[in-house]
Amino acid sequence: MTLSDPALQSDLRDCAHAMADAARAAILPLFRSIDLDTENKLEGGFDPVTAADRAAEAAMRAVLAERRPDDGILGEEEGAVEGTSGLTWVIDPIDGTRAFLAGAPTWGVLIALNAGEAPLFGMIDQPWTDERFVGGFGRSDFLYRGFVRPLGTRAARPLDEAVLLTTFPEVGTDADRAAFERVRDAARLTRYGLDCYGYALVALGQVDLVIEAGLAPYDIQGPQAVVEGAGGVVTNWEGGPVHAGGRAIAAANAEIHAAALELLNR
Amino acid sequence: MTLSDPALQSDLRDCAHAMADAARAAILPLFRSIDLDTENKLEGGFDPVTAADRAAEAAMRAVLAERRPDDGILGEEEGAVEGTSGLTWVIDPIDGTRAFLAGAPTWGVLIALNAGEAPLFGMIDQPWTDERFVGGFGRSDFLYRGFVRPLGTRAARPLDEAVLLTTFPEVGTDADRAAFERVRDAARLTRYGLDCYGYALVALGQVDLVIEAGLAPYDIQGPQAVVEGAGGVVTNWEGGPVHAGGRAIAAANAEIHAAALELLNR
Repeated sequence: MTLSDPALQSDLRDCAHAMADAARAAILPLFRSIDLDTENKLEGGFDPVTAADRAAEAAMRAVLAERRPDDGILGEEEGAVEGTSGLTWVIDPIDGTRAFLAGAPTWGVLIALNAGEAPLFGMIDQPWTDERFVGGFGRSDFLYRGFVRPLGTRAARPLDEAVLLTTFPEVGTDADRAAFERVRDAARLTRYGLDCYGYALVALGQVDLVIEAGLAPYDIQGPQAVVEGAGGVVTNWEGGPVHAGGRAIAAANAEIHAAALELLNR
Repeated sequence: MTLSDPALQSDLRDCAHAMADAARAAILPLFRSIDLDTENKLEGGFDPVTAADRAAEAAMRAVLAERRPDDGILGEEEGAVEGTSGLTWVIDPIDGTRAFLAGAPTWGVLIALNAGEAPLFGMIDQPWTDERFVGGFGRSDFLYRGFVRPLGTRAARPLDEAVLLTTFPEVGTDADRAAFERVRDAARLTRYGLDCYGYALVALGQVDLVIEAGLAPYDIQGPQAVVEGAGGVVTNWEGGPVHAGGRAIAAANAEIHAAALELLNR
């Protein structure tokens, strides 16, 4: 298996699109429907799992079973399946389940592919707005209602002209939150409630930074591949690898990444 | 002039759709474009005004000049025009300019019509997602990619099962924020960053409450007409009229409105 083989890359890319299409078909009939079946997944916490979440993961696993039966799978809902190919698909059927429950279109289907380390390829799909953000294998694509163009992060600018996104004002531990707020206070503008859509906006060249904490591997690997494919920098808060999850920073370029990292670790 | 005349209502409704269509055409080429011309409108604050904002208001005023030349206009960008018909259009070409600048699809075009007091009719339009939310004159409509269905708020439920939306975690004054946080702490789930889209989600029956402060008349009158048309309750934090702006609460029903108001004023 040579991952630099264009035919294999094309096959893997087609498989990811088929997975995202299958997830859309499973999710859209349930988005904004009334009285979804929800439950609390984490003891004492609020982490809604919807019927849509489970149906979408099952639909993506069915695509893999048919097209890539030897690959491993790490999914949010059904856990890990060991593969024999050396490749693993990392999937989150609905990232942003709280946004989904509120009817807001900032949730997404996350798909990533790795060979044991950082993602080689990944995707953020937003079925309601019909937007798909793709990165990896040396290219990036933004698909919107049948039109396609490359993604690309924005050029470097000072932190006080930068736009920062995150999901919750309550970021990680108290120390994490204090670190986040140093960047927030230095940035031009901070917006909340974006979930995975924030990474898509970095890749689209609309904003400069996403900073989050408490991520799982399936939360970050798809977005990481998309932002990196668009020319951005994605690491943990120490500047090291983040594909295993934890505290993540996605930056439009190396300069804003360095400026934000300095404040996070001051 | 009899506002209960169905022909007049139909004419006013058609005019509002034509205004929203004109605003879409003015705004969409500029959404997510790079290096929009922005400026600081408020001394010391951050209130971006984009070329799209000005172009959309001009486009809506041009529709009114042709179709309803005797009506008054209150717009965010160009101020007030006195009319002679007794009717006034209240327009905000882009509510949520910060979301717009970040590329997030939670901004909207707001249009309302009043006869001197509370809005009789109003609209929230989201051009990128192709969603239009309309309420007033005894009906409500949700338009999405060519399909139309009525809006309708959700049934009463306890506050600890309710979803609360707002735009910024920093709501109004310190006292306002403390009051907001009493409701936030009692609710099941709170999401930030929604702008006018939050009111649309109340009207769609997806969430229970929007609570905001510091609103202008053109921020609230369109959303107010939409939520009221869908069966919801929209007042200030004292339970009185809110069409002049200030601190607003939009609730799915009278029960959740009363429960939230009690906490806001405890």
